[in-house]
Amino acid sequence: MPETAREIHLLRYPDGVPTPDDFSIVDVPVLKPLDGEVLVENTWMSVDPYMRGRMSPRKSYVPPFSLNAALEGHAIGRVISSRDPRFTEGDLVTSMTGWRSHALLERDYLHSLPDAPDIPAQAFLGPLGMPGMTAWIGLNKIAQCQPGETVFVSAAAGAVGSVVCQLAKAKGCRVIGSTGDPEKADWLKNTIGIDAVINYRDTSDLSAALADAAPNGVDVYYENVGGAHLEAALDNININGRIAVCGMISVYNNREKATGPRNLFRLTAQRARMEGFIVTDHWATYPEFVREGIELVRSGALTWRETVYEGLEKAPDAFIGLFDGKNTGKMLVKLAE
Amino acid sequence: MPETAREIHLLRYPDGVPTPDDFSIVDVPVLKPLDGEVLVENTWMSVDPYMRGRMSPRKSYVPPFSLNAALEGHAIGRVISSRDPRFTEGDLVTSMTGWRSHALLERDYLHSLPDAPDIPAQAFLGPLGMPGMTAWIGLNKIAQCQPGETVFVSAAAGAVGSVVCQLAKAKGCRVIGSTGDPEKADWLKNTIGIDAVINYRDTSDLSAALADAAPNGVDVYYENVGGAHLEAALDNININGRIAVCGMISVYNNREKATGPRNLFRLTAQRARMEGFIVTDHWATYPEFVREGIELVRSGALTWRETVYEGLEKAPDAFIGLFDGKNTGKMLVKLAE
Repeated sequence: MPETAREIHLLRYPDGVPTPDDFSIVDVPVLKPLDGEVLVENTWMSVDPYMRGRMSPRKSYVPPFSLNAALEGHAIGRVISSRDPRFTEGDLVTSMTGWRSHALLERDYLHSLPDAPDIPAQAFLGPLGMPGMTAWIGLNKIAQCQPGETVFVSAAAGAVGSVVCQLAKAKGCRVIGSTGDPEKADWLKNTIGIDAVINYRDTSDLSAALADAAPNGVDVYYENVGGAHLEAALDNININGRIAVCGMISVYNNREKATGPRNLFRLTAQRARMEGFIVTDHWATYPEFVREGIELVRSGALTWRETVYEGLEKAPDAFIGLFDGKNTGKMLVKLAE
Repeated sequence: MPETAREIHLLRYPDGVPTPDDFSIVDVPVLKPLDGEVLVENTWMSVDPYMRGRMSPRKSYVPPFSLNAALEGHAIGRVISSRDPRFTEGDLVTSMTGWRSHALLERDYLHSLPDAPDIPAQAFLGPLGMPGMTAWIGLNKIAQCQPGETVFVSAAAGAVGSVVCQLAKAKGCRVIGSTGDPEKADWLKNTIGIDAVINYRDTSDLSAALADAAPNGVDVYYENVGGAHLEAALDNININGRIAVCGMISVYNNREKATGPRNLFRLTAQRARMEGFIVTDHWATYPEFVREGIELVRSGALTWRETVYEGLEKAPDAFIGLFDGKNTGKMLVKLAE
């Protein structure tokens, strides 16, 4: 058992896009587990856009991160010492104690990794973890997507968007994805095999580009971006269309509140529904999702890419890189073998 | 049977707020009913904000009105000559052939007035007609409002809003209404008996005013207005809140598209739902609504006010007055005794 662990702390709430100076790395002693506790060495941690919402003193749907304390997030680790009979040294586990090398946990905060040794563990932070579950809930439960429908996905090459695209293809939908990068566009079209890709940086009229790609209109819009993407989706939404509002990354770092879509009245004209959701509200259905997801991975219908930063000290750069398109697929930090 | 009928025609699509010059009054011959046809003399016609949407060449959820032809809208009339055995001279009927003194109709376009001689016929153009049905569908079917919830209603003294307020009170909700007129505020508070009224002209911060009036937040927002009202509702919406989007009168006459709410991401943070609807999609349930509505009128739980313009030639002024707050309650035009 090591004597020292390392943690990433938040020093201050970022103003606009976070910078490295907003974070610090701190050495702390490793405590021995007491009865009922388990000591975990983290091997992988996740950085996700939603974390930006917690780096603000404003109350949001999750409480703000505390300053001068370890940040939190999904992580995978290995039990290195256990005083809980259900966990043994060497067990692979998931927890919410990312952003640190070691964590002392009680059973309520610790879960065994699903039993699928043929699948890389870090997939359970990505397509088979929170981002994948977010895709699955938004598409199926919130948007109630049906086979044969046309689905538009923004940030389609991202950790959530790429799973939405593949789940929708697997259920027989026509899928249109948007990205701002030609290489990601190529991957979406040729590897993932969606029906049309829009590179939003190549068009001055996203609404017209979407109309071209979806001549029969859009039944489901999976919203990750906000702004012009939402306007384009509303312009093209079909009667009884659904918009699942997962995120609006275009507005997260704004200092001023961004103005909303100018065509929101399309909701009435098209009898359309726009609904926000938080994946944690639906966590009870995670086992159902992960069973389906593991099958899709094994059949080849669900694939992914990942960008890995090595070492805990790189976690702030990995997080900041999310807002700058530095990731290809799921952004991960590898903390140990 | 008269020889001449009169009709209001639309001469051109208005640019911004309609003006009297956009309309003309035209004399036309009255035709004799052929087999299966019924000649109706209209006694009342309705003017409603939604008609503005049809006075535009753009395709909307209803087709544009034709230029140089009689406008259309809900009307009540009396059969003066019938070649359909189901209708007899003197029968009171409803149709969509407003904006004209007489109309020749086939049975599919003609309905008997519900049998409630104790209730003034024109109520079936207002609280017991399309506006009342719009209130009932939006509150119950779209927003799925439950007893005990807090309901915020914009344009609360209007033809739709005032029915929403009373239906919500009748089901045991806490009701907050907004209006821009002190006299209407007084009527809402003291005659209708809602729990709180906000005069939006008296406050520079509608969101704070709503927070004061709804200290436990808003479960249901019945949207008639758009703009600052929608932002205030989103700021105060509770978790799992619902927004029924009936209309956005603040944007109907805009030449430029109005910007949307700056806080739309509240839908995600609050897991809230925003849904548009068109009352005609739900018309099959009109008999259910009208049974319930007639009972509420008879019990005194549903009351209304009306503003009556006399004579077909006043119909354009009545319509234009809708956008200028000239009406108190339902705006009607009386065409004949």
